[in-house]
Amino acid sequence: MVKYPHQIGRKVVPRGKPRPDEKISFANRGMTFEAAINDSNQYYLSRNLAVIHKKPTPVQIVKVDYPQRSRAKIVEAYFRQASTTDYSGVFKGRYIDFEAKETRQKTSMPMKNFHQHQLEHMRMVLQQGGIAFVLLHFSTIGETYLLPASSLLHYYDLDNGSKSLPLSYIQENGYEIKMGGYPSLPYLTIVEEKFLGGDSIE
Amino acid sequence: MVKYPHQIGRKVVPRGKPRPDEKISFANRGMTFEAAINDSNQYYLSRNLAVIHKKPTPVQIVKVDYPQRSRAKIVEAYFRQASTTDYSGVFKGRYIDFEAKETRQKTSMPMKNFHQHQLEHMRMVLQQGGIAFVLLHFSTIGETYLLPASSLLHYYDLDNGSKSLPLSYIQENGYEIKMGGYPSLPYLTIVEEKFLGGDSIE
Repeated sequence: MVKYPHQIGRKVVPRGKPRPDEKISFANRGMTFEAAINDSNQYYLSRNLAVIHKKPTPVQIVKVDYPQRSRAKIVEAYFRQASTTDYSGVFKGRYIDFEAKETRQKTSMPMKNFHQHQLEHMRMVLQQGGIAFVLLHFSTIGETYLLPASSLLHYYDLDNGSKSLPLSYIQENGYEIKMGGYPSLPYLTIVEEKFLGGDSIE
Repeated sequence: MVKYPHQIGRKVVPRGKPRPDEKISFANRGMTFEAAINDSNQYYLSRNLAVIHKKPTPVQIVKVDYPQRSRAKIVEAYFRQASTTDYSGVFKGRYIDFEAKETRQKTSMPMKNFHQHQLEHMRMVLQQGGIAFVLLHFSTIGETYLLPASSLLHYYDLDNGSKSLPLSYIQENGYEIKMGGYPSLPYLTIVEEKFLGGDSIE
């Protein structure tokens, strides 16, 4: 697929109908990848389509002050490494679990983006019959893919994660998320079609 | 059921076979209710029986220091109210979602323990076909119950949560969790029997 300069980056798109060759994405709307995911989850939640939340950032709290007449203030804390993926929830009775990663690289996603324990977590989720995947955003080329955790783990197991995940592998084994409508990142449409084998929820 | 003084509190039980009238629980082992739940989840995880985690405490981070040669230090942050329940995960392909509450009261669980948005969250999880419940621990009498979210919500809806949840209602609509073995709180045995209709996983 040929990429045009105007498809790249986060430039503001003038209001009105986009030209047919123009790719509209959450980035064009000035939204970050994470905001687009949260926005989509909010969309699904408000329409009773799914209950999927981002987990809070894990923090190790060391010291808390309790000032009079005001709320508790944490004055010493540290970031902890997450032991699971960032997003989880329920969609049509099924457990949904995913991690989202972004890169500015154009042809691959660095494998070091995925922590060992997150990969192990996804492996265990699959064993329990959950639906696990990663959302991969290539910010420079403006493309986002859903890659099933099974494909990610397969690639990782080939050489213990020492190589980057090529875009070509993601395109062969994953699904591009079409953007331009609502929600910003309609990833559950793909989950519905590819994992549940049902009709689109759109 | 008659309670004897030696069943109350967290006293250390001598090693050896318990007397028949003695109730062994995580409290007797010096474990808190939360620790017993985490311990049980770890048990299920390590045996590939389920993947259930406690969500991190939600914290609003305001200021972070990045000292040279040492890791980032959060120096101003505040506790945020959770928008979901504390525990979630996957068990035999099903989405599991629960909240745990403890009281020192002997005959009821104060309804104010449950926040409005947590109840709404459970309602939406049920709508999506997830399995939702609460684990209720009565520390003074040393009893723990699993109450399905549907029963909790039914009671709440009777008068918008203005009355405490009576122990008798919990006993009629919930299931006591038998303690004394491993894991400390074998709640998935009840989930298996009552929600999935299968054999015990023990």
